[in-house]
Amino acid sequence: MSASEFESVEASLSKYISPGDLDEVRRILYGKQTRKLDFPQSATDAAAERGFDLQGCVFEASSEQLRLPRIVRVGLIQNKIVLPTDAPVLDQIAALHKRVGEIVEVAAMCGVNIVCFQEAWTMPFAFCTRERQPWTEFAESAEDGFTTRFCQELAKKYNMVVVSPILERDEIHGGTLWNTAVVVSNSGKVLGKTRKNHIPRVGDFNESTYYMEGNTGHRVFQTQFGKIAVNICYGRHHPLNWFMYSMNGAEIIFNPSATVGELSEPMWPIEARNAAIANHCFTCAINRVGTVSHHEFGHFYGSSYVAAPDGSRSPGLSRIRDGLLIAELDLNLTRQIGDQWNFKMTGRYEMYGEELTKAVQNDFKPNIIKE
Amino acid sequence: MSASEFESVEASLSKYISPGDLDEVRRILYGKQTRKLDFPQSATDAAAERGFDLQGCVFEASSEQLRLPRIVRVGLIQNKIVLPTDAPVLDQIAALHKRVGEIVEVAAMCGVNIVCFQEAWTMPFAFCTRERQPWTEFAESAEDGFTTRFCQELAKKYNMVVVSPILERDEIHGGTLWNTAVVVSNSGKVLGKTRKNHIPRVGDFNESTYYMEGNTGHRVFQTQFGKIAVNICYGRHHPLNWFMYSMNGAEIIFNPSATVGELSEPMWPIEARNAAIANHCFTCAINRVGTVSHHEFGHFYGSSYVAAPDGSRSPGLSRIRDGLLIAELDLNLTRQIGDQWNFKMTGRYEMYGEELTKAVQNDFKPNIIKE
Repeated sequence: MSASEFESVEASLSKYISPGDLDEVRRILYGKQTRKLDFPQSATDAAAERGFDLQGCVFEASSEQLRLPRIVRVGLIQNKIVLPTDAPVLDQIAALHKRVGEIVEVAAMCGVNIVCFQEAWTMPFAFCTRERQPWTEFAESAEDGFTTRFCQELAKKYNMVVVSPILERDEIHGGTLWNTAVVVSNSGKVLGKTRKNHIPRVGDFNESTYYMEGNTGHRVFQTQFGKIAVNICYGRHHPLNWFMYSMNGAEIIFNPSATVGELSEPMWPIEARNAAIANHCFTCAINRVGTVSHHEFGHFYGSSYVAAPDGSRSPGLSRIRDGLLIAELDLNLTRQIGDQWNFKMTGRYEMYGEELTKAVQNDFKPNIIKE
Repeated sequence: MSASEFESVEASLSKYISPGDLDEVRRILYGKQTRKLDFPQSATDAAAERGFDLQGCVFEASSEQLRLPRIVRVGLIQNKIVLPTDAPVLDQIAALHKRVGEIVEVAAMCGVNIVCFQEAWTMPFAFCTRERQPWTEFAESAEDGFTTRFCQELAKKYNMVVVSPILERDEIHGGTLWNTAVVVSNSGKVLGKTRKNHIPRVGDFNESTYYMEGNTGHRVFQTQFGKIAVNICYGRHHPLNWFMYSMNGAEIIFNPSATVGELSEPMWPIEARNAAIANHCFTCAINRVGTVSHHEFGHFYGSSYVAAPDGSRSPGLSRIRDGLLIAELDLNLTRQIGDQWNFKMTGRYEMYGEELTKAVQNDFKPNIIKE
C-alpha cells in the first residue's frame, strides 16, 4: 500500500489487533482512553454528504470543590485544496472559503467554541517551490483582508473563536510578507495576530524565500473559552517555542501545519504531544491533506490530533481525506496535571536562563570533561 | 491481559497486523526502519541461558567525503532486583553486581563500546517509600565505592565505557546523598560524575526526601567513542534539560530511569524520542523492570529503547523481562540531520535567553491579549 493511500494507524490497529491486546496497545500508544463524542445526526449526515472525516472525543478532568468544570469544544479542520493551482487566485481563495465554510457549519452543529484552520489555509502550500508568483498574490491584510472579514462573519454567526492562519501582507512595514495567524474573537472582533517564530530551511526547501522569523513573540489570547496560543508549523520542532507560550499562560496551543510524509511523518505524533506533556497544556496539531503543487513535494498526510497534559491523545484524522476533529476539553485538567507532575515547579528556569544566555555568546565554552 | 503480563507493543503489532499494513504502521510509529543487528551465536545462547531479552539494531548514516563513519555500539541494560528487599544490604548489592556483570559479559561479546545501567541500579528503587532506612545504606562514594570499583574492573576488562547510576554518599559535603551517574572511561579511570537535575515530587511520591536537585550542571563527557551525557530519570520531562546537554555537545544522551506504568507509560515512548529529534542527537531511555518494594508502587515496565535524530527508534525491550538492547550508531548522523533540519540554526536562542530571564522574575507579566 502506498503512503498516499494508507488511511491511518488507528484504523489498522482496530482492524487487526485482538481485543485482549488492543486495550494494552492503545493504552501505551495513546494514553488514557478518551470518551467518544456523540454528534447530532444532522452533523454526521452533513459530514458524509460533504465528504469529510468527522471524529470527536472527550478529555475529562476530576471535579474540584472551588472551580466548576471549564468545558470547551475545539474544532480542527484539515483539507485539500479545491481548485487547481493554476486557477485564478481569487477563484482559488473563494473555493477554499466555501469548502472550509461548509465544514465550519458542521462544527457549529456540534457546538464547537474555537475552530482552527491549517497553515496558510487560503492557498496551496506553494512555499516548497521557488517562484514568488503567483503565490505572493495570496497574501492579505491580517486586519481587514477578504479572509479576515470572512472569518469575522463565521465568528459572529456561530459565536465561535476562529484561528485563521494566512499569508499576511504587512503594508505598514513596506509590504513585507509574514506567515501569520489571525485570532478572531467570538464577538467578531479581531483579537490580534501572531506570527510564525521559526522558519524552515530544510534541505532544498527554504520558506525564508517568502517571509522571515516572526516578531510577535509569544503572545497568548484570552478568549471567552480559555487562553490560547498559536505555534505555527515548524515551531513545533522547537521545544522552547511551546514552552514560552505556556509560560505566558496558554491552556491550548494550536499548531497549524503543512508537512509531508517523507520529511516529518514519524515526528508528527511525537512533537505536539511531547509539548502537551512537558507544558501541562492541550495541544492541537493540524496538517493539510493531499498533494498541492505542480512540484513533486509529496503527500500532506493530515493526521490532525489533539494531545492532553496527561499524555493521552485523540485518534488522528484521516491521512488522505478532509476532516473535522472535535475535542471536548475540560481546561481544569491543565492545572490538575500541573499540580500532580509539577514540571513548572521543578523546572529550575533561573538556571536555564543563565545557561542559555551564556550559551549564545560567541566565546561560549561547552562544558566538556576529558580524560 | 494485565499490564504486568503484556510483553510489548512491538510484539503485538508483528503478531496481528497484516504485512501490507504493517510496513506503514511501523514507518509512522517507529520511523525509518532500522536494520537488525546480528549477534554471535555465543551471545544469543548466553542471553537465553541467563534469561534475558537480547535485541539489537543498526542506525545508519550516509557516507561523507571528509569524515569516516563514526560507529559506536551502545548497550542498555534493564533488570529486576535479584534478592528480596529485606535481605542484607551488601548481599543485595553483590547479587546485582553479579547479575549485571553477566549481562555486561554478553554486551562485550557483541562488541559494545558504551554500556549504561538503569537508575540507582545497585538497589531496589525504594524512593517511592518514606523510610530512610535501610535505603540510605545503599549509598556509596562515586569516586571509590564498591560499585565504582566494580565498574572500573568491567571497563578495563572489556575496553568499555561504563555509565553507572548510583545513590551517592558525598562525604566531602556533610555526607549528603545525591542521585548520581558515574562515568568510567574504557581505560578504567573515573572520568567524572553527573547528578540528577530535576527531582520528582509527584503526588505522594517525593524523592527530595532523599536527595535534592543536582549541582553538576550539564556536563558532557568526551569518551573515545563519542561525547555522552546523562539525563537521569525525571529530567526527561524537562525539554530544557535535554537541550542544555546538547548545547554542550552531547551526541548521545542516556536517560537511566525508574518509572512505573500508571504514572508514565504513555509518555515513555514520547519524551526521549522528542529529545532526539529536537536536539539532533541519539537518546537512550532505560527503565527497570518488575515490582520492587513491599509498597504497592506498581510495575516498572522496562521498554528501554534508543531514538535517533531522524525520528526513528529501536524496538523496545520487553516490558516484563531483564534485557540488553544493543544499538549500533553512526554518530555522523547527528550532524547530517542537523544540517538538514537546522533546529540549532533556527532556534533563536538569544530571544529565549532574554524571555526566560524575564519570565522567572517575580514581577513577570505574561503577554496576554484581551478583547
